Amino acid sequence: MIKIAILGFGVVGSGTAEVLTENKKIIEERLGTEYEIKYILDLRDFPESPFADRIVHDFNIILNDPEVTLVAEMMGGSHPAYDFSKACLEAGKSVVTSNKEVVSNFGVELCSIAAKKGVRYLFEASVGGGIPVIRPMQNDLASNKITKVCGILNGTTNYILTKMRDEGASFDSALKEAQKLGYAEANPSADVDGIDAARKIVILAALASGTLIPPKSIHTEGITAITLLDTKVAEALGCSIKLIGQAHIGDSGLTALVSPCMVRKTNPLSRIDDVFNGILIDANMVGEVMFYGPGAGKLPTASAVVADIIDVIAHLDSELKTINWSEAKECDLAPFDEFSIGRVFISKSEIAFPSGVKLEKQIKAEGAVAYLTAPITEKEAEEIKANSEILSCFRII
Amino acid sequence: MIKIAILGFGVVGSGTAEVLTENKKIIEERLGTEYEIKYILDLRDFPESPFADRIVHDFNIILNDPEVTLVAEMMGGSHPAYDFSKACLEAGKSVVTSNKEVVSNFGVELCSIAAKKGVRYLFEASVGGGIPVIRPMQNDLASNKITKVCGILNGTTNYILTKMRDEGASFDSALKEAQKLGYAEANPSADVDGIDAARKIVILAALASGTLIPPKSIHTEGITAITLLDTKVAEALGCSIKLIGQAHIGDSGLTALVSPCMVRKTNPLSRIDDVFNGILIDANMVGEVMFYGPGAGKLPTASAVVADIIDVIAHLDSELKTINWSEAKECDLAPFDEFSIGRVFISKSEIAFPSGVKLEKQIKAEGAVAYLTAPITEKEAEEIKANSEILSCFRII
Repeated sequence: MIKIAILGFGVVGSGTAEVLTENKKIIEERLGTEYEIKYILDLRDFPESPFADRIVHDFNIILNDPEVTLVAEMMGGSHPAYDFSKACLEAGKSVVTSNKEVVSNFGVELCSIAAKKGVRYLFEASVGGGIPVIRPMQNDLASNKITKVCGILNGTTNYILTKMRDEGASFDSALKEAQKLGYAEANPSADVDGIDAARKIVILAALASGTLIPPKSIHTEGITAITLLDTKVAEALGCSIKLIGQAHIGDSGLTALVSPCMVRKTNPLSRIDDVFNGILIDANMVGEVMFYGPGAGKLPTASAVVADIIDVIAHLDSELKTINWSEAKECDLAPFDEFSIGRVFISKSEIAFPSGVKLEKQIKAEGAVAYLTAPITEKEAEEIKANSEILSCFRII
Repeated sequence: MIKIAILGFGVVGSGTAEVLTENKKIIEERLGTEYEIKYILDLRDFPESPFADRIVHDFNIILNDPEVTLVAEMMGGSHPAYDFSKACLEAGKSVVTSNKEVVSNFGVELCSIAAKKGVRYLFEASVGGGIPVIRPMQNDLASNKITKVCGILNGTTNYILTKMRDEGASFDSALKEAQKLGYAEANPSADVDGIDAARKIVILAALASGTLIPPKSIHTEGITAITLLDTKVAEALGCSIKLIGQAHIGDSGLTALVSPCMVRKTNPLSRIDDVFNGILIDANMVGEVMFYGPGAGKLPTASAVVADIIDVIAHLDSELKTINWSEAKECDLAPFDEFSIGRVFISKSEIAFPSGVKLEKQIKAEGAVAYLTAPITEKEAEEIKANSEILSCFRII
């Protein structure tokens, strides 16, 4: 009998309890082992909940109970989630989590403690909600060198951008709608400023490269400045605007960034709408594969947490090679100034481009003029922006 | 040092040797173990190949070599592939394969022998080529009850249907083009008659339900009768015609079938074109997830074979719960007559539908009239077809 503790009885925590209970029979059958939720840590009481008798308020009860070998952390935020996770791992308990903030900032240390203690630290639910992506990257693509990861990693912003494109809603009114539906928080900054997507792309970049970049140190743009003119010009260019996290693993090092991009209709990410997420992976043997599904939500995210719980239980007696990440050093990172990608410049008046910039397309739409360039470096793009009257500028994928 | 034998040095077999060699360093690093291809079984010699010294013609050399603990079968066809696989498993060697014909017909027996002998029988590459789908279904969706699987499982037919839709090519000319490009065999029956897709959907259905239905016993329609009128009517209805394998796991049992379907534009499968494959899974906790990528090809398929090889090596010392399928019994299967799904009927003249059939849409296009019905049973659809002048009839998803 495996005894599990859940830290945090919010949306994902209660969803995890629900999945573990609702599908108990099939999960135990698959595992050939029984399990039980022994404790649920939360500051609140939940007298109406079927799990009311499992609620505890003191973390030490869990930490000091040797029967608890598996802890699912769904508290959110860095502290005390990181501290509790670290303490559990050091006490020889495996930890699974949906907490991208902790994984993206403290993943190197927590994975290393897990390895030393012979336990697991798993975080499938930290990226893409219910979409299987982390374990497939590690297992199914293990025969590949992953060269690129591009993803729609945040459901809230994708919902807002879909509304703007399909209904001509302004950013502000689409955001209000998202808040009304519970997709966006009262303070939407983590979503609309790209912070959430940045945490997720550094996790995916680390899985592909072995190097974890602090999310704060990657180039991150949000979607607050996107106008209806932008979405209409995108349409005229045959593109959709999406908030894209991308990571490139090349000979000169690793590049990761988050920004709104014009996504060509031929790119499967262009058709991922509403709150759905999609992660497109380029790998040297398989080519291009994509994972698609619900990027958030109570039961989808809990489904991924419980997949990790099942993974831990199924391998309790195995000696598995665990994740071994290193902190990003200067030499691991490609110089961002030299990162090169196609661009769309939108302006009210004609732009005179430097002679080195190759134009692929130029259109007039909605009283503006839009230029699509062949790949240029970040430095070149900044120079063009500094020297011309640009309304907006998008990377293109 | 793990010693591997490859059975069959055709497209996928030689691709597997290439992936194992090309990415040897990163794979061995991930595994913490070294490996070597000791033998390659083929009737032919390959004097120009870098693997020429590994070629053997006698299967018994491999079977009787206790150093060989892992065999990758990529021979295709049922015999001797099944016989060799069985012999290897009985000799205590793990077997990985891309051979959907063997898995779909002999999977119950081979999985059971593997379980008895404490070895593995893995077949990620048998469905969806390089797309991770089998292992994600088993691991990442293990916390779910899978209720439905729908997929574009055959790249050749998807290429043909895409040509017909986008270029107005006839079936015959699209098939010729596919043959010229090497996507279709000289004898294209296994692809265009739906046989290949039937093998794949029964494997996916077995992963979802535990019951393996013989592929020959499921309802299977191919794409040879599809006309340009059909593709144009589909367009007018806002649909794409795709060859769909589908499996439904319901309270009354399991249903699996292969047929061309009208796929609504809102269904992500509608946008999977050319030789790509996509598998859409409905599960009770996560909701809808989709896996997309190259459904065939030398290196993509080999990438999946090598993922299985890595899985076997990584778990050599673990006692894992292996796949336990049972043969389909009458009571496992839902009565096909009662299977219910929306339909599109295309006719030159108006059709008088029985009073129980609810019409959702009726359009005139290309000199024909098309009716879209709410779900009706297979039996009802057959009755309508028998009593009216129908040009074609499609299930709709």
